[in-house]
Amino acid sequence: MPESSTERETQRLEAFSDGVFAIAITLLILEIKVPHLEEGQSLAKALLNLWPSYGAYAFSFWVIGIFWVNHHSFFKLFRRVNHGFLLLNVLFLAAISFIPFPTSVLAEYLRDPARMRNAVTFYALSMCFPVLAWFSMWLYGSRRYRLIDERLEPGYVRFMTRQYAISNVVYIAAVLVSFFSATLGLAMEIGLSLLYFLPQRSPSYLEPLNTQVDLT
Amino acid sequence: MPESSTERETQRLEAFSDGVFAIAITLLILEIKVPHLEEGQSLAKALLNLWPSYGAYAFSFWVIGIFWVNHHSFFKLFRRVNHGFLLLNVLFLAAISFIPFPTSVLAEYLRDPARMRNAVTFYALSMCFPVLAWFSMWLYGSRRYRLIDERLEPGYVRFMTRQYAISNVVYIAAVLVSFFSATLGLAMEIGLSLLYFLPQRSPSYLEPLNTQVDLT
Amino acid sequence: MPESSTERETQRLEAFSDGVFAIAITLLILEIKVPHLEEGQSLAKALLNLWPSYGAYAFSFWVIGIFWVNHHSFFKLFRRVNHGFLLLNVLFLAAISFIPFPTSVLAEYLRDPARMRNAVTFYALSMCFPVLAWFSMWLYGSRRYRLIDERLEPGYVRFMTRQYAISNVVYIAAVLVSFFSATLGLAMEIGLSLLYFLPQRSPSYLEPLNTQVDLT
Amino acid sequence: MPESSTERETQRLEAFSDGVFAIAITLLILEIKVPHLEEGQSLAKALLNLWPSYGAYAFSFWVIGIFWVNHHSFFKLFRRVNHGFLLLNVLFLAAISFIPFPTSVLAEYLRDPARMRNAVTFYALSMCFPVLAWFSMWLYGSRRYRLIDERLEPGYVRFMTRQYAISNVVYIAAVLVSFFSATLGLAMEIGLSLLYFLPQRSPSYLEPLNTQVDLT
Repeated sequence: MPESSTERETQRLEAFSDGVFAIAITLLILEIKVPHLEEGQSLAKALLNLWPSYGAYAFSFWVIGIFWVNHHSFFKLFRRVNHGFLLLNVLFLAAISFIPFPTSVLAEYLRDPARMRNAVTFYALSMCFPVLAWFSMWLYGSRRYRLIDERLEPGYVRFMTRQYAISNVVYIAAVLVSFFSATLGLAMEIGLSLLYFLPQRSPSYLEPLNTQVDLT
Repeated sequence: MPESSTERETQRLEAFSDGVFAIAITLLILEIKVPHLEEGQSLAKALLNLWPSYGAYAFSFWVIGIFWVNHHSFFKLFRRVNHGFLLLNVLFLAAISFIPFPTSVLAEYLRDPARMRNAVTFYALSMCFPVLAWFSMWLYGSRRYRLIDERLEPGYVRFMTRQYAISNVVYIAAVLVSFFSATLGLAMEIGLSLLYFLPQRSPSYLEPLNTQVDLT
Repeated sequence: MPESSTERETQRLEAFSDGVFAIAITLLILEIKVPHLEEGQSLAKALLNLWPSYGAYAFSFWVIGIFWVNHHSFFKLFRRVNHGFLLLNVLFLAAISFIPFPTSVLAEYLRDPARMRNAVTFYALSMCFPVLAWFSMWLYGSRRYRLIDERLEPGYVRFMTRQYAISNVVYIAAVLVSFFSATLGLAMEIGLSLLYFLPQRSPSYLEPLNTQVDLT
Repeated sequence: MPESSTERETQRLEAFSDGVFAIAITLLILEIKVPHLEEGQSLAKALLNLWPSYGAYAFSFWVIGIFWVNHHSFFKLFRRVNHGFLLLNVLFLAAISFIPFPTSVLAEYLRDPARMRNAVTFYALSMCFPVLAWFSMWLYGSRRYRLIDERLEPGYVRFMTRQYAISNVVYIAAVLVSFFSATLGLAMEIGLSLLYFLPQRSPSYLEPLNTQVDLT
């Protein structure tokens, strides 16, 4: 298979994934319904009352947006894809597309003290799937098959493996925490998403890349 | 028409198809509705009760995902497209976009013993359309017009024709089976989708392709 | 402005338009709702009863698909775009995105003898907008500004202008006809869409294009 | 990081943003619901009665379309993107995706004298978010980090900064105006969107760009 065709394949995979990201993120708005008012009710109050929906919209937009930004840098580490990797990516995308559902469950039940805990647990559980699928793609592409750029420094690859593994542990921990305290579980989810404000370690290569400008 | 413009055309067709795939696959989530609870009902139970919806979502995501992965390798066999091929691809995409509807019918009636059989038949019937449209694209592009890569080995082309023909027969058989047993029909649909875990025969060419790197 | 950047602009416009096409065409399925049955009602009958929805889905998918295929060949005639052309294309896309709405009105009232006529008129009227916007893009790009490929033969350009003008007249005629007969109006709409099975006149250029392969 | 890879990154960002634009703009149609009629009601009248929905659809399509056209020229000013810029763009897209919601609130309450003012204020407020996020991207990319094309004339950059700042002030003013008069607030929103019919100042560069054709 010629090199250029393989690269086009990676690009088509990225384009498809971007499409799913873009749609999943935009569908979030469909969960906010226009309030239907009774005689004499104030629209302003009804719109303000929708704050859990705005909050859930903003938060899930942010979370999917972060996954997209990272998918973006993640794929720069790969040189090629294969059948199995494509299938794992489908699973990952299924987990991303699922997010609008737990988001609206959360928005609906955030103010219901008897059910908020269940809603948070469900949300936290749903967040484990994309994180787990991500980790599988990484292990599959860096260990099982060498799909990643062979010029990546082994130290960097080990660092990422460790980081993704920890990420899984923390997301699972958030599910367990939410059994005991919905507020604490939710705080963990928010905290995890805010971590991405920090600059991330950029990939290190065994050889300088700028000598390769014309080849890529 | 310059070669490069023809290739851009194939790419635009792929991009459009990818768009439809990405949207159809992401719309599946809209079929899962937030449960509205009565006083005293448990949210956890209500969310668990939605299992047929989760199952149908996961299964249809998987099926559309597989169609996408295959569309991906399918198009690598084509060198150009024409008016008729574009129209056939529109029919194929109409069949793909339809999938969210039988999926939600299936999710809704999977636990209703009186109607499950109808729901499975309808789902199995709906799966025949994309398989049939796919086969038409293949026959049109490999027999009626030579749109496929002229370097493909005739033996490989015959192998694919046979494989797609068998695929049609099996999908139609699943519809007939579902008339007698919903469970068996559903098992066949699941089994068919699991076949794609197996590695697929990669295309064989009459001449080595890697001498052509700069041309593609 | 460097040539290559202008071309990327045309490509980005195509990509955005393709996105809107892909979404509008896929949203059509959302108009078909899962039937909710009473005790003892047959699911098979209820699914068969949805035939106007399937028909409207298939027809509108076909219509939007044809617009897409043509947008595809249409844009190959253009060399550059400008601010005004982008805005006209936004209007065109607004007309395309609108199609799912008259489609579901048609599906809902196709079997209601008292309202079918209104539903068909509304559908026919809605189809005039994209046709009109298309014609405006063409006049704007071929007459007001020379955005089209300057190598196109003047005879071909005149032929297309005439063809698009006739197209407008016929689509408006279908609206008028539908006032008198819903069936005839609908038949005209279907007939118009079937015209696209015919091969279309391919563009003629003043100079042979194949000497230009490396430049495009 | 090789230059070409950075440019691909900008392109992927554009493609993702285009996806969100295309979906947000197309989802607007979902807010128009098929009227369900009582015995003896006229469909024609019911469809005409939906004029606030058509108006809101057309207006928001136009507004998002304009944002897209401008995002288009905006990104031509940038040479590279970084982590922070990607995150700001996610915020911008969240603001764009939100527009279908205030649009349907506006369509629902435009004819309700008691609530129209609230609906217009909410719409005007929602329009401030994308304008503000846009301004942040500009300041971040032109001041905080030099992500913009270093060949842009400082005078042009200052002009754009001033123009975006004024834009923010006017959009906020429209919110305040809508507190006193819904009609005037709405007129301001429409007026602001019509400004884009005017040709925009094209970027000026320190050196002629056409000597650089082969480099871009």
